[in-house]
Amino acid sequence: MSDTGNRYVVGIDIGGQTSKIGVVRSDGSIAGRRVIRTDGYGTDATSFVADLASAVKQLLGECGDPLVEGVGVGAPNANYFSGCIVNASNISWASGTSVPLAQMLSSSLGGVRVSLTNDANAAAIGEMAYGAARGMKDFIEITLGTGLGSGIVCGGQLVYGHDGHAGELGHVCIDHENGRLCGCGKRGCLEAYASSTGVARTAKEWLEARPEDPSPLRFLDHINSKAVYEAAIQGDQLSNEIYQYTGTILGRAFADFVAFSAPEAIILFGGLARAGELLRKPVVEAMEQNLMEIWKGKIKVLFSTLPESDAAILGASALGWNNLLTNNDQ
Amino acid sequence: MSDTGNRYVVGIDIGGQTSKIGVVRSDGSIAGRRVIRTDGYGTDATSFVADLASAVKQLLGECGDPLVEGVGVGAPNANYFSGCIVNASNISWASGTSVPLAQMLSSSLGGVRVSLTNDANAAAIGEMAYGAARGMKDFIEITLGTGLGSGIVCGGQLVYGHDGHAGELGHVCIDHENGRLCGCGKRGCLEAYASSTGVARTAKEWLEARPEDPSPLRFLDHINSKAVYEAAIQGDQLSNEIYQYTGTILGRAFADFVAFSAPEAIILFGGLARAGELLRKPVVEAMEQNLMEIWKGKIKVLFSTLPESDAAILGASALGWNNLLTNNDQ
Repeated sequence: MSDTGNRYVVGIDIGGQTSKIGVVRSDGSIAGRRVIRTDGYGTDATSFVADLASAVKQLLGECGDPLVEGVGVGAPNANYFSGCIVNASNISWASGTSVPLAQMLSSSLGGVRVSLTNDANAAAIGEMAYGAARGMKDFIEITLGTGLGSGIVCGGQLVYGHDGHAGELGHVCIDHENGRLCGCGKRGCLEAYASSTGVARTAKEWLEARPEDPSPLRFLDHINSKAVYEAAIQGDQLSNEIYQYTGTILGRAFADFVAFSAPEAIILFGGLARAGELLRKPVVEAMEQNLMEIWKGKIKVLFSTLPESDAAILGASALGWNNLLTNNDQ
Repeated sequence: MSDTGNRYVVGIDIGGQTSKIGVVRSDGSIAGRRVIRTDGYGTDATSFVADLASAVKQLLGECGDPLVEGVGVGAPNANYFSGCIVNASNISWASGTSVPLAQMLSSSLGGVRVSLTNDANAAAIGEMAYGAARGMKDFIEITLGTGLGSGIVCGGQLVYGHDGHAGELGHVCIDHENGRLCGCGKRGCLEAYASSTGVARTAKEWLEARPEDPSPLRFLDHINSKAVYEAAIQGDQLSNEIYQYTGTILGRAFADFVAFSAPEAIILFGGLARAGELLRKPVVEAMEQNLMEIWKGKIKVLFSTLPESDAAILGASALGWNNLLTNNDQ
């Protein structure tokens, strides 16, 4: 690394259909981007990694072949400790098997350090490197998408846990008696309520249970969290109550998370976070009602400031920095 | 520190009535002990610290004046970051005020490093230095006494949080609707159920609510968790159900804690843990029922192996080691 030049890392976001590659500067600006297919390789992980490595090399060439400090990869079911993608059902070459992607990609790129983690942890690290958590050592990033993912940072360290699977806050239980069935097989998981699919489930349940309540949602063929948001800001009472309910459940859970790790902030990321104050207001109210005195009024609930279109690449890339998470890189 | 000699730290446990001092070797054996009064100083913290320092010096003299690596202090309402005891209601000289004990004691002892934390964190660090968590980097220590305290270790680091108050797991909420009032002012806190006072509350509630159920507890003037334990092992059905109920609540909460930090083990410490399998069995059953698939059968629930009479001194002393929590001491 030159003292005068910019510093660079590569960020790679592996999704079910496409994988996005970015060459990223230390200020979070992106020097170059490229997209390749993830699908179409059947069970042949080796060919995918070969194509990925050559795309990375071409992109670096286009960027003037800068010296790269490291490569960070975000992927579903990725384990930081093993560097493997483990049984990712939506990636054909990683379904029902374990692919040592970090090691394979590093070999193909001449030995550069490759670190791998799941999407929710990558979002947290990206937030710490370039976003709303810059300078923070204790925060929780909550990714509100079709599920609820989380990345937890304590004392400047991402919490991986004994096995690399820590931070499954979507699967704390909020109702042991009559909880909704979750995709994980358990009942009452937080993400069955506080996620975009959770909002849609609440809407469908309530429309059926409250036939007397008028709502424009009744005229839709397909109800998703965006439709509920739009109805809410148009003044639909039922839709407003749905966000109030969702935010209350989420805020109560946040109070428990604070009792665990006493974060400076909880940061909201992902599609459902676009609901803005409609969601944040009931979240903060419910959290404050359930916090211990020592924390009342002191825990920030913020929105991510990662640019949405590049968030996945940025998050992954932040894993590549040598000195961001010093304690993890020792 | 000599390469050939033993290594030493001083551990001090400050309680409401007495303060215990121990000179501790690196294997957890105790070279010498002393007890002084904590009360009787009114609001005069300075005199208490002077007496504490002179007791430490005398004790070290009796132990042959070994070179001491550091001093660790466990105290109620102690903050690791500030080194202060903050408004400890049961210590007259620290009630309604903040006492910079670490700094004061260090000055009185010629500048030796003094670290301070609360009792529950001290127990966790002691467990890691000398007990059941030796060699572990990810575990949670649960202290089951009159309340429920916790010390959380992630990646070899004790989790202090942004403000030093992390690990208040006794105050996660297990019942938002009809929860018991907790000493902290909130309703439904875990420690209102899973603690020695929680067990006694359950007993009193159930005896009143179930007048038809026979139980030897009905003939006692005073019901505490020990009496319920003794009735349970004598075969009393109601008392067995009370431990089943307490363990179920605690085990469900443990499943949520695992989702947070994926620990290798959860370690039970404190008076209520003496109930042994009577408590551990329902804890493990309820935890397993509520764990995600990836963790089923993999999370150990252990009992502390710290010798009970010296546990407080040992826990505090472990804070004194230079290289135990490398990341915190940098």
